[in-house]
This record gives sequence, structure tokens and C-alpha cells, in this order.
Amino acid sequence: MALRWYTTVVDCRDHHAQARWWAEVLHWRLIFEEEEGSVLIPPWLEAEPMTIQEWDRGNPGLVFVPVPEDKQVKNRLHLDLAAHVEDDRDAEIARLEQMGARRVDVGQSGEPWTVLADPEGNEFCVLESREF
Amino acid sequence: MALRWYTTVVDCRDHHAQARWWAEVLHWRLIFEEEEGSVLIPPWLEAEPMTIQEWDRGNPGLVFVPVPEDKQVKNRLHLDLAAHVEDDRDAEIARLEQMGARRVDVGQSGEPWTVLADPEGNEFCVLESREF
Repeated sequence: MALRWYTTVVDCRDHHAQARWWAEVLHWRLIFEEEEGSVLIPPWLEAEPMTIQEWDRGNPGLVFVPVPEDKQVKNRLHLDLAAHVEDDRDAEIARLEQMGARRVDVGQSGEPWTVLADPEGNEFCVLESREF
Repeated sequence: MALRWYTTVVDCRDHHAQARWWAEVLHWRLIFEEEEGSVLIPPWLEAEPMTIQEWDRGNPGLVFVPVPEDKQVKNRLHLDLAAHVEDDRDAEIARLEQMGARRVDVGQSGEPWTVLADPEGNEFCVLESREF
């Protein structure tokens, strides 16, 4: 594979706050925080040496970068999160709401997922729990 | 970790075309294609049985879903791709342009990454090549 999906970038009004918020949502680690952006990686990436093959197969990081404009329309790309079937999905959603997530209506009706928005309004879903 | 980043979802006017386009870009596999959406996964995910830990650490898939509206503004989330230092980055960008990617100006100036847009206008970057 010559081109790999390396990271996913989120435009932010306040990338510091957004990165810290998403770190808390996912239990990921903030490994870089400067004027030009903040970077989160999964917690295991620095904990263990990885082979090239493992990195190649790894989860892309999340990068938060500053932009001057507010979010204007429903995002064209969004993240879907999921809990394991043995986790308490309702408690996880309640945790997100306590952190400032809002439930939003993007036209869903009866679907098994819950649509939320982060503090800057970026929509994301919590899917049905599953066996990973 | 109770909530995992499970997948990334891309709104599309033509999710069939978009999924096939991105499959070709990343050399990922189209494993689901119905009216309600198309799903890509990295090529190794079905090739080998994975442990829960491996899946948990795995790359989220890409899901393409139909929406009635066109893209309107610069995306708030975008993907960053990268080649390995031993790959031919220029040839990869030329390949994408031959497939229909366009170079776009989102205000970048002298940065080491190249900003492109997919056939529906979704911005993405090809970063500097790196050692994975």
C-alpha cells in the first residue's frame, strides 16, 4: 500500500479544548499541543514498541487544528463510536452528555444509534454496542 | 475503554462511486454495498482472524452513506494520507489526479502537504512521506 490513511483532522475554534474533550471521550492521549494544533493517539501507541506492520495497521490519530470560522452546516464526515456489548452504553451516553455533548436531530428516526454533537457542534454517533 | 472509535462516515451523493473511489485510493476492500451505504475495510481485516485486542487496536473502517444534499462548505473533518519514505509520493499524487482528484486551495501556503479533493469535493491531504 503506497498511501495510508495516516490521521483524521478536525477543524476547531478552540483546538485545545476540543482535543482535551475528545481525549476524555475516547480515553486517548494528548501527545502534542501547540499553537498550530493538538494531537491525540490511542493509549497503547506509546506504551509499546510497534513494528512497521503494526503501525501500518494501526488506528489513525486525531489531529485538532485551529480555524477562524465556526461550524456552519451538518458535517460531511463524522465519527461513529461504539461500546462493547458488556459495557453500559446508556451510562456512556450519560457521561458524554455530562461532558457537554448534546443530542441532535439530523433526521434520524428509530435508528439504533444515538446522534450527539461535541462542544463545537460536530455530529457523531454512538452505535449499537457490539462484540469487537 | 468503554467507547471506541468504530468507523468514520462520509456523506455522499453517490456512495457507490465514492466508496469505490476511496477503495482504489487506499487499496481497501469494499465488503458491503447496499442502498443504505457502502463499507470499506483495510485489506488485512478479513484475511486473518483477529483477537479482540487486535480489533480494538485496529483501523476504523470507512462508511459511505447517501444524503440528498451536495457538499456546501469546506469540510470540518478531513483525512490525511501519507506515503512511506520509500514510496514515490509524486507518482501517488499523479495517480490520484488521474482518478479524478483535484488540487484545491484552502489557504495553504508553502506547507509540505498537498491538498486535494475527491470527486465529491471532500478535501484531503497527502502529507510528507514518513517512516511508519
